[in-house]
Amino acid sequence: MTTSSGTRGLLIGGSWVEGAGGGYEVRNPATEAVVGVAPEASAEDARAAAAAAAEAFPAWSRTAPEERAALLDKVGDLLEARMADLVPLVQAETGATLAVTNSLQIPQAITRFRRYAKGALEPTRIPLPPGQQAATPLAPGGLISAVAVRQPVGVVAAITSYNFPLTNMAGKICPALAMGNTVVVKPSEFTPLSTLRLLELVEASGALPHGLLQAVVGDGEVGEALVSHPGLIPLVIIRGSGPTTRELSAHGAAHGVRTLAHADGGGVLYLDAHADTETARTLVRTSLDRLGVCNRLNLLLVHESRWDDLLPAALQELDALGVHGVLPPHDRERGFEWALDEGNEANVTIDRVASAQEAATIANDETSGLAAGICTTDADTANRFLDAYAGTGAFWNATTRLLDGFKLLAAPETGINVDHVPGPRGPVTFRDLALRQFVVRPA
Amino acid sequence: MTTSSGTRGLLIGGSWVEGAGGGYEVRNPATEAVVGVAPEASAEDARAAAAAAAEAFPAWSRTAPEERAALLDKVGDLLEARMADLVPLVQAETGATLAVTNSLQIPQAITRFRRYAKGALEPTRIPLPPGQQAATPLAPGGLISAVAVRQPVGVVAAITSYNFPLTNMAGKICPALAMGNTVVVKPSEFTPLSTLRLLELVEASGALPHGLLQAVVGDGEVGEALVSHPGLIPLVIIRGSGPTTRELSAHGAAHGVRTLAHADGGGVLYLDAHADTETARTLVRTSLDRLGVCNRLNLLLVHESRWDDLLPAALQELDALGVHGVLPPHDRERGFEWALDEGNEANVTIDRVASAQEAATIANDETSGLAAGICTTDADTANRFLDAYAGTGAFWNATTRLLDGFKLLAAPETGINVDHVPGPRGPVTFRDLALRQFVVRPA
Repeated sequence: MTTSSGTRGLLIGGSWVEGAGGGYEVRNPATEAVVGVAPEASAEDARAAAAAAAEAFPAWSRTAPEERAALLDKVGDLLEARMADLVPLVQAETGATLAVTNSLQIPQAITRFRRYAKGALEPTRIPLPPGQQAATPLAPGGLISAVAVRQPVGVVAAITSYNFPLTNMAGKICPALAMGNTVVVKPSEFTPLSTLRLLELVEASGALPHGLLQAVVGDGEVGEALVSHPGLIPLVIIRGSGPTTRELSAHGAAHGVRTLAHADGGGVLYLDAHADTETARTLVRTSLDRLGVCNRLNLLLVHESRWDDLLPAALQELDALGVHGVLPPHDRERGFEWALDEGNEANVTIDRVASAQEAATIANDETSGLAAGICTTDADTANRFLDAYAGTGAFWNATTRLLDGFKLLAAPETGINVDHVPGPRGPVTFRDLALRQFVVRPA
Repeated sequence: MTTSSGTRGLLIGGSWVEGAGGGYEVRNPATEAVVGVAPEASAEDARAAAAAAAEAFPAWSRTAPEERAALLDKVGDLLEARMADLVPLVQAETGATLAVTNSLQIPQAITRFRRYAKGALEPTRIPLPPGQQAATPLAPGGLISAVAVRQPVGVVAAITSYNFPLTNMAGKICPALAMGNTVVVKPSEFTPLSTLRLLELVEASGALPHGLLQAVVGDGEVGEALVSHPGLIPLVIIRGSGPTTRELSAHGAAHGVRTLAHADGGGVLYLDAHADTETARTLVRTSLDRLGVCNRLNLLLVHESRWDDLLPAALQELDALGVHGVLPPHDRERGFEWALDEGNEANVTIDRVASAQEAATIANDETSGLAAGICTTDADTANRFLDAYAGTGAFWNATTRLLDGFKLLAAPETGINVDHVPGPRGPVTFRDLALRQFVVRPA
């Protein structure tokens, strides 16, 4: 099948196959013109894609890191040469709402892609805590060296969200491949054709061995299939917030598949009794540079002793940004995430609290546990807050917008994971798409 | 309720309560004499115990590490003074089959307990990979320091196995408490009375704040309840192998509870074409010092070119240990774990293979993925095997018996976890009973 947009179907095992789920017309949301026909996968196609990626895994995981990095760099060359061609298709599919017209977007994404490809070269040894020995006299016969290392997981599925396909390629697919994994991609419902076209470009170039990348376009049934086969796909990155992410995570958990996702977000900022007013203003302002993101300011808590002076200052900052402060009494839970409430993104919930401890407790018990910060000049209070808050990122006089793999770790963030168990949590980087293994050798 | 053994019921929220599940007579398996009546928990008791542990968590997690270590050390004093009293009860319950008559057992366990209590003092900072910066110029206003730290999880449940209660106290409960967690213990079916008595000792001494430790005795219903409340108990350590562990792990996964467990084990040893015969003999021998453990030699693979000389050498070693080598053709899967086959522990499956790669593939595809080793003098072959094997421990000229937290990391092993996802894997230590959190402060 060759669709009117030029894509040829699903990418399974290095071949373009017709989706068993049929095809559907993709229309420009602005003009309603038909952009193309997207091939649709069935649950069985998703399983086949996973099986093909699993088949490609052993050889790729054994490929030397230098070669993995070099091959991915060749993909970088290809993207540099060909990406601009993709822009009209993305614009048509999305009604030009994606910021791909920004001329900086493509070079930036390619720079990131190349940088993340170098992740393959990072030593896989897991550092020990300070003071711990790396080599222990384990054997009576002599020294033996025991280290913990990262090994690739196998097949990682990436259920992507509303992003320029190159951004997903750089931020999610490249890190997974660099680590030695193979990948099944489920494009977002907004960019099926351009994502397939991008993967087709890569596949056709021969830059990478066949089969490392699989792509399945589809609806909920396909998403569910991707989180239902722990033996084939032990790990799934789910991007995007909201009910779909929540349901897929629950479905994955029930099937024994580990998902990395955050269905809910929303940053908390607590302005302490010892808050510096100018710092408070800066934190409010810099926490709201974007409204649709998970780590933006969502709930502002103000110490009761400073309600009368900090509230007006905060409201003034919100006003200047066109954001509305929702004041008590509240008719919905304080953790309600405005970024997910279409049309009502420009709100911030505000409340007063009696202490840093109360603020941390509210952040722990009533919000997603993504990120919270304290604004204070008092180090003891700050430390109490940082210790008491259990979410993935705790901030002192710094904005929760910094909860981001690139900003915190200069590494690609494949997603943010909010859960309450050991393992990858907060920004997930390529280092997290790995299994821990202990290796013991003669020293 | 005061039972005939002197225990007073279930330990929930610092009080002894009557188990809603009633009570059952515990008999000495050797003499059939009644040892006492064990109070039995209902699923609702298990939930109440978890809720009580959750209530105790915030204060304990905020207790300074130095104080946590000091309080646990006081428990060490108590155990030292009183543990010998417990031995007759353990012997009666287990029919004297537990090795508690070994006079070294108690002092050794107490030494470990004290050592593990010091885990509380270890810096909680998670080390960065070599070459990565700890502080990044994140804010326009100046340097900000971003670090990843370990934070306690909350309530951890320990479903323990056939062990001297003090061993569980030292190896599982102490590390969880040291890390700042609170604990619900489900004693093994073989030691309900002695485990309750031990916890009663600790609780009555007042050495620890009330409520840190909860205990529920019960059957499968109680185990299931402990892995069914992710909001109350996000993490459960399950000790012991076999079908019960497998079912509880699956039940936990379906409820979104993270379990750390290995239902199956069995070490693999591959004798390569370049194996030194004496090393091969030593590895076979030292891998079978105990037969009931998960990391013992279970499957021996021999390179076909050395079948004629290494097989007789291996069989001679097995013979000397009273172990039977099960030769091909095999009528059951090669990964079948003899340690779990009651009465047939003294077997090792043997087969021939054509290469190190084939040996690694068999270990990956047909065994539990716990541990495998290669015996060879050739470094290239060794590295190929170590790279290709995906299990939790990979060994070169070293026995899989070293897959043990204490031996590898000089840290208490709360259990071994065999799964195929990022996070704690292989020997789980106190460092793994923690959540990752990013903390950002002004530098």
